Amino acid sequence: MASWVPGAAGSGFDDDHLPYGVFDAGAGRRVGVRIGSSVLDLAAVADTPELAGVLAAGSLDPLLAAGPATWAAARSLAHRAVTDPDCRTLVESHLHPLESVRLLLPFTVADYVDFYASQWHATAVGRMFRPDADPLPPNWKHLPIGYHGRAGSVVVSGTPVSRPRGQTRLPGAAPTFGPTQRLDLEAEVAFVVGVGSPLGSPVPAGAFARHVFGVGLLNDWSARDIQAWEYRPLGPMLGKSFATSVGPWITPLAALAAARVAPPPRTHRLLPYLADDAGLPWGLDLALTVEVNGTVVSRPPFAAMYWTGPQLIAHLTSNGARLRTGDLLASGTVSGPAADQAGSLLELSANGTRPVPLGDGTSRTFLADGDVVTITATAPSTGGGRLTLGEVTGAVRPAAG
Amino acid sequence: MASWVPGAAGSGFDDDHLPYGVFDAGAGRRVGVRIGSSVLDLAAVADTPELAGVLAAGSLDPLLAAGPATWAAARSLAHRAVTDPDCRTLVESHLHPLESVRLLLPFTVADYVDFYASQWHATAVGRMFRPDADPLPPNWKHLPIGYHGRAGSVVVSGTPVSRPRGQTRLPGAAPTFGPTQRLDLEAEVAFVVGVGSPLGSPVPAGAFARHVFGVGLLNDWSARDIQAWEYRPLGPMLGKSFATSVGPWITPLAALAAARVAPPPRTHRLLPYLADDAGLPWGLDLALTVEVNGTVVSRPPFAAMYWTGPQLIAHLTSNGARLRTGDLLASGTVSGPAADQAGSLLELSANGTRPVPLGDGTSRTFLADGDVVTITATAPSTGGGRLTLGEVTGAVRPAAG
Repeated sequence: MASWVPGAAGSGFDDDHLPYGVFDAGAGRRVGVRIGSSVLDLAAVADTPELAGVLAAGSLDPLLAAGPATWAAARSLAHRAVTDPDCRTLVESHLHPLESVRLLLPFTVADYVDFYASQWHATAVGRMFRPDADPLPPNWKHLPIGYHGRAGSVVVSGTPVSRPRGQTRLPGAAPTFGPTQRLDLEAEVAFVVGVGSPLGSPVPAGAFARHVFGVGLLNDWSARDIQAWEYRPLGPMLGKSFATSVGPWITPLAALAAARVAPPPRTHRLLPYLADDAGLPWGLDLALTVEVNGTVVSRPPFAAMYWTGPQLIAHLTSNGARLRTGDLLASGTVSGPAADQAGSLLELSANGTRPVPLGDGTSRTFLADGDVVTITATAPSTGGGRLTLGEVTGAVRPAAG
Repeated sequence: MASWVPGAAGSGFDDDHLPYGVFDAGAGRRVGVRIGSSVLDLAAVADTPELAGVLAAGSLDPLLAAGPATWAAARSLAHRAVTDPDCRTLVESHLHPLESVRLLLPFTVADYVDFYASQWHATAVGRMFRPDADPLPPNWKHLPIGYHGRAGSVVVSGTPVSRPRGQTRLPGAAPTFGPTQRLDLEAEVAFVVGVGSPLGSPVPAGAFARHVFGVGLLNDWSARDIQAWEYRPLGPMLGKSFATSVGPWITPLAALAAARVAPPPRTHRLLPYLADDAGLPWGLDLALTVEVNGTVVSRPPFAAMYWTGPQLIAHLTSNGARLRTGDLLASGTVSGPAADQAGSLLELSANGTRPVPLGDGTSRTFLADGDVVTITATAPSTGGGRLTLGEVTGAVRPAAG
């Protein structure tokens, strides 16, 4: 049964997608589901006390925490609402055109972890930053490298990003403090944890879908000059912690059933806790697009990522670290093997040496004030077409003050 | 006026200290103040609606967020309660002996950042881990290096810590997975943020005391073999994220007025945003003690730390990152220049080559199952004696499973 919502078919937000977000149409925060170019106020049409309860908060937090059975019930409710003609009169009164609402950060970010799961990105960065060493660190093929980012700096798509100031040093010179000269984007995909786990109990790869609620797009804004000076030996910090943008729509794993593909062949034998070859694979065929001021500068393929979501979860908890509702696990920059598949300007511009042309006749090595970065993605949908992940966009503002 | 509470005088928890915690005496979570060997239920004696409000939550969160004027009012209330003989009858009914209560994690940890602010620790570690390079990284004297840790792994003192499993690699061998063989402690001091700041607005060093509520002790448990294999290039992750213990009592900055000392002379000229030489200095003369199974193995001097709290705050927010109530900023391992002043077994045992003798005739390079680690500290108090920071302790359990 197709959706009766006008414009849903072919929009990437049809009844086979139904991602979740939080919106404000003037009456406070509400949990919504996107259908076509509208938002359905899902709490308003909840048909059981349990769903009414988990959807009442104006945040996805209670729904995330409720677990797979409730996720299935909520998805079934949303699907029925937008497809059953008998519901139309009731449901129409709870549909808001997108342009009439403000989209908000949909959940409380607990811990934010950023991985480094693309071998193409890791190799390219290694070649630039550590020219005297193997481009891929010796541990890279044995474990999904990651670090904790700043949860308090996560903002929703559309939030302007001020060019950060920071400490940098040119070779041989004294350090200086000022606006970054190498502001970059990083196109990433993020997993959102729903169900937590107790401290001391590793979550096996096979339990991935019992803990992870869904995925969204993420821009891990990066100040390369600040990062280069600060990152040894404890990793990225202020070069990343000024802003991380996430898309407003979280696509539930169930909507990605047709996007699941085998990950790339692994070149090294993995330790058992990282095995992800049982059952259906969890590579995801998400086709990303990175635009700067409307020019597509890259088309990174998420299917090329070496490490899968189940492996990230298994590794992250292998030491007993617990998961919490709202944990955000980003993939790291999504880059493919081809030059036009890199998910950062650092790679696309060959470390600032090869400007990237834009449609207006200008070019960029790194981002200029006023630039607008937009990351989108599509994926095969269960309905046979393609669904569109909620885009993450942001404009660069000049350094404040 | 001295406290009328028996045993308060000379206990390190006299009326000039009055640290805050959260306890459960059988009736749920309550905000308390420690006096002698008792806990005062502060909400129960609140004398204004504002204080009753911020103390009602069973968490320090609302008090932290309320800011310096409320912090002063709460401290004044606590002081009056434990010193005014006229209050004694009323207050006595709200005093609980420590042994009758359970102490809980006193606030919600927002972002947890771990710095690396001891030049003695950084030098010693650099010498061991990067023998071919300068022991102190080139950026070390120019900025306080730090990284984000896992907020969800922060536990209160007394929580047992299971030996983590993880991936390690001996030189030339294939990686293996199993319980860490090099479980370590790190004695640290942590600053607790009360008042947050907006994204995009750096907090100057001079605003330190308007944002930071107080300090506590912290044990940054570390698995050195896991850390050594994983940490390049993005920093420590699973070698740290299995558990971080914090003391149950947060000492307000006001109680440390007599502990403020000049930090060590700086050998490099600092960029203006890191200047901390205006007004009174914020070095802190905290004398730490590290015990393993009751044997004092080290006495790290916090006064030897190169970077001060105001500098940590100024650097952390210099790129526009916001502070949130509950942000936890740990100093990094506190180590002094002498061999018996190192705040980790890594240093005390010279990377596992020189066993540290314990009082029972055994010795340790790294921690054994069953070991109990306790970190304490004292500081000059405004009353002329010394106050005792709330100790952080934890027992090592065998690897689970």
